Formats: sequence, structure tokens, C-alpha cells
Amino acid sequence: MAASMEEKFQTLQEIVKAARQNLAPGPWDYLVGGAETETTLKRNRQALDSIAFRPRVLRDVSKVDCTGSLLARRIRIPVMLAPIGSIESFDVGGGAAAAKASAEFGVPQMLSSVCNPGLEGTAAAADNFRIFQLYVRGDDAWVDDHVKRARDHGYAAFCLTVDTAVYSRRERDLAKRFVKPWRVRAGGFDYQAALSWDHVKRFKDTHDIPLILKGIATTEDAALACDHGVDVIYVSNHGGRQCARSRSWRTRSASPSASWAPAA
Amino acid sequence: MAASMEEKFQTLQEIVKAARQNLAPGPWDYLVGGAETETTLKRNRQALDSIAFRPRVLRDVSKVDCTGSLLARRIRIPVMLAPIGSIESFDVGGGAAAAKASAEFGVPQMLSSVCNPGLEGTAAAADNFRIFQLYVRGDDAWVDDHVKRARDHGYAAFCLTVDTAVYSRRERDLAKRFVKPWRVRAGGFDYQAALSWDHVKRFKDTHDIPLILKGIATTEDAALACDHGVDVIYVSNHGGRQCARSRSWRTRSASPSASWAPAA
Amino acid sequence: MAASMEEKFQTLQEIVKAARQNLAPGPWDYLVGGAETETTLKRNRQALDSIAFRPRVLRDVSKVDCTGSLLARRIRIPVMLAPIGSIESFDVGGGAAAAKASAEFGVPQMLSSVCNPGLEGTAAAADNFRIFQLYVRGDDAWVDDHVKRARDHGYAAFCLTVDTAVYSRRERDLAKRFVKPWRVRAGGFDYQAALSWDHVKRFKDTHDIPLILKGIATTEDAALACDHGVDVIYVSNHGGRQCARSRSWRTRSASPSASWAPAA
Amino acid sequence: MAASMEEKFQTLQEIVKAARQNLAPGPWDYLVGGAETETTLKRNRQALDSIAFRPRVLRDVSKVDCTGSLLARRIRIPVMLAPIGSIESFDVGGGAAAAKASAEFGVPQMLSSVCNPGLEGTAAAADNFRIFQLYVRGDDAWVDDHVKRARDHGYAAFCLTVDTAVYSRRERDLAKRFVKPWRVRAGGFDYQAALSWDHVKRFKDTHDIPLILKGIATTEDAALACDHGVDVIYVSNHGGRQCARSRSWRTRSASPSASWAPAA
Repeated sequence: MAASMEEKFQTLQEIVKAARQNLAPGPWDYLVGGAETETTLKRNRQALDSIAFRPRVLRDVSKVDCTGSLLARRIRIPVMLAPIGSIESFDVGGGAAAAKASAEFGVPQMLSSVCNPGLEGTAAAADNFRIFQLYVRGDDAWVDDHVKRARDHGYAAFCLTVDTAVYSRRERDLAKRFVKPWRVRAGGFDYQAALSWDHVKRFKDTHDIPLILKGIATTEDAALACDHGVDVIYVSNHGGRQCARSRSWRTRSASPSASWAPAA
Repeated sequence: MAASMEEKFQTLQEIVKAARQNLAPGPWDYLVGGAETETTLKRNRQALDSIAFRPRVLRDVSKVDCTGSLLARRIRIPVMLAPIGSIESFDVGGGAAAAKASAEFGVPQMLSSVCNPGLEGTAAAADNFRIFQLYVRGDDAWVDDHVKRARDHGYAAFCLTVDTAVYSRRERDLAKRFVKPWRVRAGGFDYQAALSWDHVKRFKDTHDIPLILKGIATTEDAALACDHGVDVIYVSNHGGRQCARSRSWRTRSASPSASWAPAA
Repeated sequence: MAASMEEKFQTLQEIVKAARQNLAPGPWDYLVGGAETETTLKRNRQALDSIAFRPRVLRDVSKVDCTGSLLARRIRIPVMLAPIGSIESFDVGGGAAAAKASAEFGVPQMLSSVCNPGLEGTAAAADNFRIFQLYVRGDDAWVDDHVKRARDHGYAAFCLTVDTAVYSRRERDLAKRFVKPWRVRAGGFDYQAALSWDHVKRFKDTHDIPLILKGIATTEDAALACDHGVDVIYVSNHGGRQCARSRSWRTRSASPSASWAPAA
Repeated sequence: MAASMEEKFQTLQEIVKAARQNLAPGPWDYLVGGAETETTLKRNRQALDSIAFRPRVLRDVSKVDCTGSLLARRIRIPVMLAPIGSIESFDVGGGAAAAKASAEFGVPQMLSSVCNPGLEGTAAAADNFRIFQLYVRGDDAWVDDHVKRARDHGYAAFCLTVDTAVYSRRERDLAKRFVKPWRVRAGGFDYQAALSWDHVKRFKDTHDIPLILKGIATTEDAALACDHGVDVIYVSNHGGRQCARSRSWRTRSASPSASWAPAA
């Protein structure tokens, strides 16, 4: 359906153009770039471009229901605001701005643990469907503390990031000698590298908040997640921003295995 | 066979160049553009480019019969003038000009219901092999009225458009803020969206004029059309102008099914 | 083996560059162009580019025999000078110049019937291994006369062109309004279009000179040629210069049939 | 892991840029170019670009062992400095400079027999893990002399080059009339062309130093090498610098044969 001609933005390209003008070169490169020489980024694009619909006809589509559901909650369309670390680099409101947009439009928000204004500040910004995504940079007690705070502040589920054992190397940034300020401040990477299925088991034994694993990239790991009682699998290669030379998500999901459908 | 050097146009490129000079930017973009980001348009081009002949030799081709037939009528070559909505944007004569060309050359014309000078005006323009193609924007009585008028004015068959349940979004037009005048005037889209196989059944039960469905894109729907007694299936993705990200017509027709050959 | 640095031409590109400077635009386009929009020409190039060797090692290649044989005669390398119509457009010596090169280097020449100085003039130019290639533009007596003249002038085999039933349409020439002078003079195309396997049968029943068919493009026709006792099959799509949208010769020869190996 | 921002070179592109500025055009082309029209070179690049990882998650990678082993010796990472003929064209220290780097970093060096300062000079430069690679340009006694000298100077293994029976033709050099000085001086090519499996057998019967064959390109030859008791197979197409139109190493190693795993 064509958008109204009164709206400022008519195509995605126009939004991209405006975003480019609003951002300094460093954050812009971080936003659009990927790991290493950006091979996975290109593969993701090609995978999206290769999708084709098989249009069926004469089905009476005068009344179409576009709503979806996640964790048994109705959502306006089957789309979620993905977690973005350092989102305050792009909009001063950070996660709180995304929370307000999430509430206004009617889709869930997944909040990254590495952005402002943080777990409590974001929860206070809007009464929305929200999920908390943690980069594990502390011990079990540190994780449990985050789970408790997430529950206390109305997060509907808890997500562990599992595809960032080592922080990515980005040639686009290196070539321009851009040092991400948020990387300089960060610590606790040893915990992230040591993350294992034992931690998943302990989480499920300890907490009853729905658990999501973000960054599953093989059918084998998807099956393991199911075996561990994980509630939702977030299939992703981190947008090509973490592991270079990964296969695209589409090649992966075409793997001949049906056993890892999300248990949402 | 090389065309005579006296003719003004020697190659398709020269015709395209002249057409470009004759048209205002809006209609030109509408003519050459497609839906969304024009992925299907590109796929159609690639599908055409991938066709290869298997030339057989020593077959005595001194007398070659290039005629074809449609609905049991002989035609000069197996080609039909496809229906073009708003054809008057490209030539002031609209459908009537196409009717005259159809008569002069000896191939059938399919007339779109959304162009000038309309069903009666076009029929009056030439004594040609003509078919009427309807965009269903009214109730059963409205359809039946068109069928009656088509029969009364010598149309040899009646075609229902089945691939336009929702009007396409075209970024080429949006980016230039081009508003198609003919869209502003149009209405009755609810009927088009609600079109179903029940309408096809009712049509066949009510009328005995040959029925064509335009926009069949899957073998499943082709089989359904045969089951409903449809006389001709018009395999098409609307030239990539309606459904973006569709497969090309060639990928489709390569599907392993032989059951949907046109019943012409 | 690197060529001597004293030679004028070190790479094929340098020969191409010199040829371009020596020729008028019309003959140049005719030389490098192909039929219609040159799709087959591009496919041929891609087919050549896709060839890959499987290098075996430790085989003692200090003495390598590069000679080949054609029609039981030894040739320096398994290469033949292909027939070129109107070759006098590129070198004033025409077929005679090619004959001299053929004799000097030690590979066979196939002479096209549509070039200067003709069957007798070329035979007089050099004592080489030569084959005559006929475009059939006359009746049986006309063909028999050519066979007799070819035998009388030392041609080792006779070749019928079977892939030129209709002369090609070339957009490169049309776009530049280039009229090939040799086309204006030519006639007898009806005989070429009517050529059939009956003519092949009559040829084999009448003559005992080895028969070559040039332009076989399918395994089916190769099998037919074998059935008719044809001595050599010349697999070719005429360099993409006759039939547009043909498959490349490589796709063809990859067809799953072993029955049509040349009977040379 | 991101490199320290203090280091001069942050990406491979920056190293390439500096190397380009340091070298004269002739050596540069020799360094980056390949055989003939460089088809194999491009295929190698495409083969590398097509590699994709299947990232597994939650595996506790806080302690990762990146060391490897070659000929039962521990090496820092599973990488070896490949032999480079005429390496002194790129760094005046030649093989000795590479030897020092090999010792400092902790990976093996394979020294080409056709570079400075030669077998003894290089061995004297550093106490590293070194292997000698011979281009066979002499008789058996000449080979045996090299083996003895290699043993006497601490080379851990001996490598025969088997993919250079004929020296490559390089259009990049020819087009610029660049004559490689080291080629002018070289001789003994007859021995190289005559190399056969008999020489491999004689080597294994005569010497007990581990034998490596460099340039195996087919599973058949890999199997033959195993049959002859070769200790290590060096799969390579010489970087596309010797045999043009070869398949890429990756296509080769994907061949369905498991029998030729290196016997290291």
C-alpha cells in the first residue's frame, strides 16, 4: 500500500540519507559496517535479495490479519526492535527512545545491556512489551542480579548473548583509526569468552523467566538449546558485525533440520 | 532476417530511445519501472536472458509456418498485444490505437478495463480479434454487465485479473513524488481484494464466454484453474509491476508439473 | 614457454590492438561482433573462461609430442584454420594468404566458398593441407560441380555448412547502418534454407571424398550425422555469429551422450 | 582481537600499500601477478572468498590453543612461511630475513633453492625450524649434494617442487617487456621437465630425511605420493603463478577422496 504523500519519508533510501546527515563518521561506520572485511555483511544482503515469494491468487485478502505473537503475547506485526549496543550514539534518548517507539507502535523491544539509560531507566520510559538482553561480563551472582532487576522492572523475558565470545575486529574502523568510546570503558570479557552450556543449564535451574539465546547459528546448537529447555532461539549472525566469513543466516536456516523451531 | 534499411527503426534500442523522448518523466517511469525496489523486474530480465535454443540442423526450413492459434482462431504469429492500463498515457489513441495495430498486423489484442476509450470505443475502432480484461471493482452485477457488453461488442473472450489484490507500491514513483492521475480517480478496490475462487465458479456457472485468468503464478493455482474449467491461463507476474520479490515467470514455469497447460 | 622478446607481438592483446588499427569500422564490427544482441557470443566467452585443467605432476614431460592428426594426416598441432567468409575484408590476400600461412606452419586450412580468390586461386597459392567448405546456394549439379573442382584441386575433404539456413541479423551492424558489400552480391539462399538430411544421403551415395558437416549443435544431430556416414562433425555455433541465444558449444558438448565422437 | 592502535599497520591493505611504494614496477608485477592471463589467480581469490565458517556457541573459549604441529614439532600457529624464489627482489636480506622472522615469531620457514643468500647463508642467519625446497635443475648426484648440505645445515625436511615442469608464461610481464633478471641466469630446465615418480622412488630409497612434494593438484597424484611413502603433500597450484587455467586449490581439495591426507 502506498504511503501517504504527506509523510516526510516515502522510501527507506530517504531515511538512510537523513540518518547519514545526522551522524558523525565514526558512529555512521559503526552502524553500517561489519566485522573484518565485511564478507558476512555482504552475504546477508545477498541472502535477503535472494528471497522470492510464491504468490497465490484468488484467496479473498480483503481482511488480512498481520498480527503475530511472541511468548504468548499478541503483537501488532511479527517484528521486534532488535537490541542495539550504544544506541545512544544514534539517538540521545538511547534505549528509552526505542521503548517509547515500541509502546506507540505495538511491537516488543529487546534492550541491550550495553546502552543508556540502562535497565531501570528504559523501563521507566514506557509501558511496553520489553525483553532484556545481557552481555555476560560478570559471575553467576552478577547474572542473577540482572535477572532479578529485569523481573522487578517488567521485562517479559531474559536473553543471553552467545555469539560474542571475542569482540570483533572491524577494518572499516581500523582504517580510519576510529576508537569506539564505549569499547574503552568496557570490561569483563573473560566471562563472555568462558560462557558455556553449563551456564545455560544453571540459568534454567535457577530462574523461571523465559530464556532466549541470541546468536544461534547452526542446527546442532539449536538442538542443544532445545535440549536445555531454552524458550526462544534468536537465529542471527549478529548482522555480520561479529563473526566474519560466517555463512548468511539464510544458508543456515535452509539446513535440513526441523528440530529447532523456536519454542515460543 | 535483416529488416530493410529503409525502415526508420532497425533495432529495439532505437524504438526505446524514441519512446523516451516522446514521454514525460512520470509516464516513462511508470512504463519501465516496477513494484517496490524492482527486484522482480530484474529477475524477469535475467530469466529472459537465460533462455537458450537447441538449434537442430538440416530440416528444410525453406517454408516455415509462423502462425499460431488462440481460442481456435488462427493468428499471424503466436503473440498477443498485452493489456496496458492507462495506455492513453503513452499514445493519445489509447486502446483504440492498439486495436487498429492488432487488426493491421493480425494478432489479438487484450484490452484493459482501465484505459481509454473503453470497451465500446475500442471495439468501434477496428475489426480485430479482441479480448476484454477486467479489474473487478464492483459486485457480481457489475461484472455481469461487463460480460454482456463485451459479448455485444465482439470480444472473443473475457479475462479476470487475479494478481492485483492490493495495488503495488513503486519506489521509483515515490522517490520522485509522482502521483499517477489514473490512480487518484480509481475506486472499488475492496472488490478486487475480496476476489476468490468462488467468483470464478460463479462466472463459469453464469457465462459461456471463454474465461481467462491473468496472473497465475504457481502450479497449484494453475491446477485449481483447470479444476474450475478456466479456458486459458495467463502465466505472468504482471511484468514485475505488482508483486515485488516474486520469482520470475521462468522459474515458475520450470516447476515440475505438467497438469496446467492452457486449455485453449 | 615465453616467446622471444625480439618478436613484435608478445600477447594476443597486442595482435588485437594492431588489427583494430588496420581495419575500417564496418569490417571490424563484422569480425568481432555476433548475431542479434550477441548473447551467444558472450556465452561462448564465458564457456571458454570456465575451462579448468587438472594438472598431473611427475610425468617426465621433457619430450612432448604436440602433433595431432586429421583425416589420417599428421598435423603440427591439433589446430585448423577455420573458414572465414569475406576474409579478403581483413587481408587483401584473402584465402590465398591463409593457405600460405597454413603451409608454412603446418596445420590444415578450411576454405570458405564465399571468399576470394576462390577454390582454384587458393589452391594455386600454396601446397597445403586444405579442405573446402561450401555454403549450398545452388542445386545438386551445382554442389557436384564444386565437389569435382575441389577434388581436382587437391582439397582433402569437403564440408557442408548446415547452421546457416537463414542469414543472421546483427544489431551491431544495423545500429551503424553498415551494409556488408558481400551480402548485397550474394544469392541462392533458398537452397541453403531447404538443405536436409536427404542432401547428406545423396552426397554420401554420390561422392567418396570425406564429408564434414559444420555447425552440429546437438547430440541428436551428431547421432544422425553418424547414421548418415558423415566422416567428421564440426561442432560449432558459428562463433555466436549465426544463431543468437544458442547455448555455448561447451554446454552442448557436456550433454550426456558419447555416441557422436568425430569419425575422423 | 583488535590490534593495538599504536602499531603502524592496522590492516592488510595498509601493508599492501606500503609494499607497493617500496618496490619497482617489475618486481611488484612479479609479486602480485600470475601465469598467462591470470585466470587461476582470480579463481584462487574467489575460492578463498567462498569459505564460510559454521560458528558454534557456548563452548568456553576463554583458553584457546592456537598452536599446531608439523613433522612432530610444535609451532606457534599452523602457518608456514612459504618458499619465495628471488625473495631478495622484495627485501635485500632475502631468505635470511625470512629466517629471522621465522625464528622470532615461531613458525617454520620453507626456503626456495632459487633465492639468496642460499642454503648455507640462510641457515647461518637464524636458529629456526627450516625446510629446504629444491627446483631440480641437475642430475641425481646434484640432488644428493643438496640433500647432504640441507641435513648438514639443520633443515628438518626436504621438498621437491613438482609443478614447474615448464616455466610459466606471464602476460603481465610480457606486456611491459619486463625480463626477470633471475630467469636470464637460470639453467638446467631439462632436469625439471624430466622429473618423474622414479625420482621420488630413488629419493626415498636413498635418503631418510622427510620428503615433501610441493604442487600436488589432484587426488590421483596425492594417492601416488602416499604410495611412494612421501611424508608431506603440499597442495598448491603455485598461487596461480605457474599453470594457468588450473582449478583453484579449493575445488581440488573438495574432491571426494579422503585417502591423501598429509602423512605429517
